[in-house]
Amino acid sequence: MTQQAHEIHLIRRPDGMPKPEDFAVVPVDVAEPGEGEIELQTLLLSVDPYMRPRLDRDQPLDAAMLGGGIARVVRSRHPEFAEGALVRHMSGMRDRFVSDGRGVAALVVDPDLPLSVYMHALGGTGLTAYGGLLEVGALKDGEQVFVSTAAGAVGSVAAQIAKLKGCYVIGSTGSAEKAAWLRDVAGLDAVIDYRAEPLAPALRAAAPNGIDVYFENVGGAHLDAALPLMNVRGRIPVCGMISTYNGDREGVRNLSVMIYSRLRMEGFVASDFGALRERFAADMTGWLKDGKVRYQETVLDGFDQAPAALIGLFEGRNAGKMLVRMAQ
Amino acid sequence: MTQQAHEIHLIRRPDGMPKPEDFAVVPVDVAEPGEGEIELQTLLLSVDPYMRPRLDRDQPLDAAMLGGGIARVVRSRHPEFAEGALVRHMSGMRDRFVSDGRGVAALVVDPDLPLSVYMHALGGTGLTAYGGLLEVGALKDGEQVFVSTAAGAVGSVAAQIAKLKGCYVIGSTGSAEKAAWLRDVAGLDAVIDYRAEPLAPALRAAAPNGIDVYFENVGGAHLDAALPLMNVRGRIPVCGMISTYNGDREGVRNLSVMIYSRLRMEGFVASDFGALRERFAADMTGWLKDGKVRYQETVLDGFDQAPAALIGLFEGRNAGKMLVRMAQ
Repeated sequence: MTQQAHEIHLIRRPDGMPKPEDFAVVPVDVAEPGEGEIELQTLLLSVDPYMRPRLDRDQPLDAAMLGGGIARVVRSRHPEFAEGALVRHMSGMRDRFVSDGRGVAALVVDPDLPLSVYMHALGGTGLTAYGGLLEVGALKDGEQVFVSTAAGAVGSVAAQIAKLKGCYVIGSTGSAEKAAWLRDVAGLDAVIDYRAEPLAPALRAAAPNGIDVYFENVGGAHLDAALPLMNVRGRIPVCGMISTYNGDREGVRNLSVMIYSRLRMEGFVASDFGALRERFAADMTGWLKDGKVRYQETVLDGFDQAPAALIGLFEGRNAGKMLVRMAQ
Repeated sequence: MTQQAHEIHLIRRPDGMPKPEDFAVVPVDVAEPGEGEIELQTLLLSVDPYMRPRLDRDQPLDAAMLGGGIARVVRSRHPEFAEGALVRHMSGMRDRFVSDGRGVAALVVDPDLPLSVYMHALGGTGLTAYGGLLEVGALKDGEQVFVSTAAGAVGSVAAQIAKLKGCYVIGSTGSAEKAAWLRDVAGLDAVIDYRAEPLAPALRAAAPNGIDVYFENVGGAHLDAALPLMNVRGRIPVCGMISTYNGDREGVRNLSVMIYSRLRMEGFVASDFGALRERFAADMTGWLKDGKVRYQETVLDGFDQAPAALIGLFEGRNAGKMLVRMAQ
């Protein structure tokens, strides 16, 4: 017996900003799970900036969009997954599908938290912020911290963890609304709207005691502004360099300050932090339940909204994490 | 009783390339050493690239040129220094002077090595290469290594230490003569004369297995050429960025590869490596005596040759370390 399910396909390469016609919701048949397989029903889909460059290359046409989400096991013939259990998956934009369990991980949730936080603050973006700041950045309590794109899904968590560690935290962001959220809700010490004022002098004024850790999401002019303000033995965990992704790659000119200031700059990705996962989950669950880490999310309802969510993200119409929620 | 001695003074700021008339050999009186003092006779003076920018600013006019050398204790009223002992000093370009011992350190030499090696391979430049490569660069045996300005006082030691650790070593340099020395005497695996061929394709061809450690002396285009070739978890110890020192600061555009390649880039100076000093001295003494680390030096005889040595260095008329030797 087969049943009907759906996938989001990319049906042509976008020319500039993706359009709804570049995507299709395609009905597919789902077979019975065989021995060692599970049938999964997706509850939430994650929609992320990293998906944009993939549309031009790595994403196959006429196949399920690459991506991940949270699903429920609706049928199981796999010893490790019980029916009814929640899982994370990286199996693409599919509402219902059969899996052999590869790339699927059991998800134990706290009943006092909304499920969606497991897609951002308690998910990959949260772990990226946690590991990047505490492990790669080797943050010490009370240090001077600068976070670029501080209102983003990763930046907002990094900035608030630094606040929790007693640090003085400066954030940069690109709109007055996001700046207000960072100041009034996230509680940062100084916020720079880099679209409203020149970044370098604003950062200099905001960092009277220099910068010990620069959590780097932007590169280019942001990095050039931060480098001369770095304190001796400062650290620059490099999470992203979004200013360079669209081919508009500004050169960085101030790297030679790394020598006498003995700066360390280091790249990382979330999968580096497997060993931190348990401590991260415990810390972040507590912080979220105590209201010490705040977040924003933009949730679109209905599987067929996934293309709109993706386009909305690229057009900046989201506040915080962009998600698609399926009817259950 | 006083006696006659000499100092090299800067008597006017150079306009572009320094000229002999910018300097003077000035006779001075040397008093008897008092209680807790020593009288020192300089044997060798170190002449280094870092001295150039100082001539425009930090170097006071009509005072002894800043710098260091090796001296002999000719009279001592200081409990820590015996008459006849050798010392390193950072007391400036002076042939004979009295010191209270600050900035003066006992120097124990190996009788089978020329004294001059204690000014380069066994001195600060050697320690810079050793600590930068092994500690900051965390070099592992057999790795792929690239050293820029590999024929310089620091680069040549770094490149040869990497060879001693069983690494595949690529060096860049700016003349055919230096390239030949690196290939034929220092025994590097691949040498690029960046004045004779475009750097980026030459480096790509020379590094078929990528680069694990890039010992960075240049910055700018050198760094941009190396970054895309770095292997995952590669390291870039930053010793210098000479391409940026004269205001001609090329922007670096390829930094975003640091993220997925998890690169670490870190600045350092020789004074960071105090804890390595003993192990360095033992290792390097052995390597020099076994002929495993080769070096070049250009020695000018006579204290009054110091200005000529300095100018010759800035004009690139030296091979390897530039030194001034005094009659003894």
